[in-house]
Amino acid sequence: MSGGAAEVGGIGLERLSLNQATVKHLGLREAVSLCARHDIPAIGLWRDRVAEAGLAEAAAAVRAAGLRVSSLCRGGFFTQADAGARRAALADNRAAIAEAAELGTDTLVLVCGGLVPGQRDLGLARRMIADAIGELVPDAQRLGVRLGIEALHPMFCADRCVISSLGEAVDLALSFPADAVGVVVDTYHVWWDARLADEIGRAGPRIVSYQVCDWVLPLPADILLGRGHLGDGVIDFGLVTAAVTAAGYAGDVEVEIFNAKVWDAPPDQTAATVRERFAAVLGGKERP
Amino acid sequence: MSGGAAEVGGIGLERLSLNQATVKHLGLREAVSLCARHDIPAIGLWRDRVAEAGLAEAAAAVRAAGLRVSSLCRGGFFTQADAGARRAALADNRAAIAEAAELGTDTLVLVCGGLVPGQRDLGLARRMIADAIGELVPDAQRLGVRLGIEALHPMFCADRCVISSLGEAVDLALSFPADAVGVVVDTYHVWWDARLADEIGRAGPRIVSYQVCDWVLPLPADILLGRGHLGDGVIDFGLVTAAVTAAGYAGDVEVEIFNAKVWDAPPDQTAATVRERFAAVLGGKERP
Repeated sequence: MSGGAAEVGGIGLERLSLNQATVKHLGLREAVSLCARHDIPAIGLWRDRVAEAGLAEAAAAVRAAGLRVSSLCRGGFFTQADAGARRAALADNRAAIAEAAELGTDTLVLVCGGLVPGQRDLGLARRMIADAIGELVPDAQRLGVRLGIEALHPMFCADRCVISSLGEAVDLALSFPADAVGVVVDTYHVWWDARLADEIGRAGPRIVSYQVCDWVLPLPADILLGRGHLGDGVIDFGLVTAAVTAAGYAGDVEVEIFNAKVWDAPPDQTAATVRERFAAVLGGKERP
Repeated sequence: MSGGAAEVGGIGLERLSLNQATVKHLGLREAVSLCARHDIPAIGLWRDRVAEAGLAEAAAAVRAAGLRVSSLCRGGFFTQADAGARRAALADNRAAIAEAAELGTDTLVLVCGGLVPGQRDLGLARRMIADAIGELVPDAQRLGVRLGIEALHPMFCADRCVISSLGEAVDLALSFPADAVGVVVDTYHVWWDARLADEIGRAGPRIVSYQVCDWVLPLPADILLGRGHLGDGVIDFGLVTAAVTAAGYAGDVEVEIFNAKVWDAPPDQTAATVRERFAAVLGGKERP
């Protein structure tokens, strides 16, 4: 295939982050060790694995390994049918913000939620998300954590996230202070969008996380797992990465792959492939 | 569930069309008989079934039954890797335009094509589609057939259609004469879009077909088949239909359901369900 090669100017391996979901079967300490072993300087953490290890212990482990924490996944799921569930979601998100701060990351990724159970009203779900984010802004500002609104692929609109395009995420983020709310650009979710480059440009400094994985064909039976290593699919990473770079994003780039075969592969093999593909596809060079 | 009920002002059953794909196992004559038997006044035809019956015979059969042909499905698949294949696609589309005219419909639905084989370049695929439509405009005008650009759901972007949102379809249509090129609004493909109502309004008289079916959860293993009868899923048909009506669309409304269970159901049951749901969900009333 042509396109998507290393002509982008290059994101170096010093900006590579391994999102923990890529090695789903590893506990936190094992994932941290894997990154250290493969000279991967940052990690994206998941709350369930952090809780399993213990918050303070998890924070100590990543510090001891000298890793940056590029983000914590995830908050969100704000679209609840009753007031009690909405309050519980807010409380859970406040806990997630505090965990992010304790872990030393300034980014909490939000999967905002699908349609409200029993409702077909997309507008209602979207307003509920805006209201919830508004409630969380003071907590985020106080602890120095930015809420990253992630647009999910429209095939997840009904059940996971009604924010279905980057443009919509940017519109929502722009209605809140820049130190509290931004957007996540995940290639898997947004690559198809004819307006993508424009919306990345509009997002500018609101981009708080850049996550990469490929769109592979055919989609598996479980559409959550249709992701591949960079280069195994159809996404033109050169184009998206150039736009994200031009928008000023200079942070870590997370490789996040939900794929049953990747999960079943030996983690050291996965980490090595992640590094190789990152270097080849995003144009990074080995550090001298 | 609330939402999506009959508050829209009503599209009557006199505008119901059964797209032939909803009763996939029937030949053309059987599908025509089914419509006549269930007082469904229009039918959306598919080229393979027309060819099987013979073009002149198919045209005679629908005329004899007093049915309108709301559209012919489908042309498109313009994104070919080599010049010979592109020429063949154009020739096939010219044949489809002639078939549409012979069948007495003024609408040919286009599924424009995914990424060019071996390429990751969305822009290339989109330019190739624009070029092909431009080539076909004189043929469409000469025979009085409008080419309906259908935005397909972004989950089909790689392999079936890189036109992934209604806005993109409208942009493309507006670059051609209104008597030759329009857009198809299919609820299944566009329901998730926060810009949908705006884009339907912008499409205005360019809307040449309105197709309806529901988005049901969970998606089946074959994502082409995740469609349901109106009311079985999450789509707010009231909202979309009100926008399409406000935009001035007054033509037939095709029920088009790709679903293995629907295909395996007795066709008379399917036709009865299509009528009942159309009346209940789109607000149609039984004719006096």
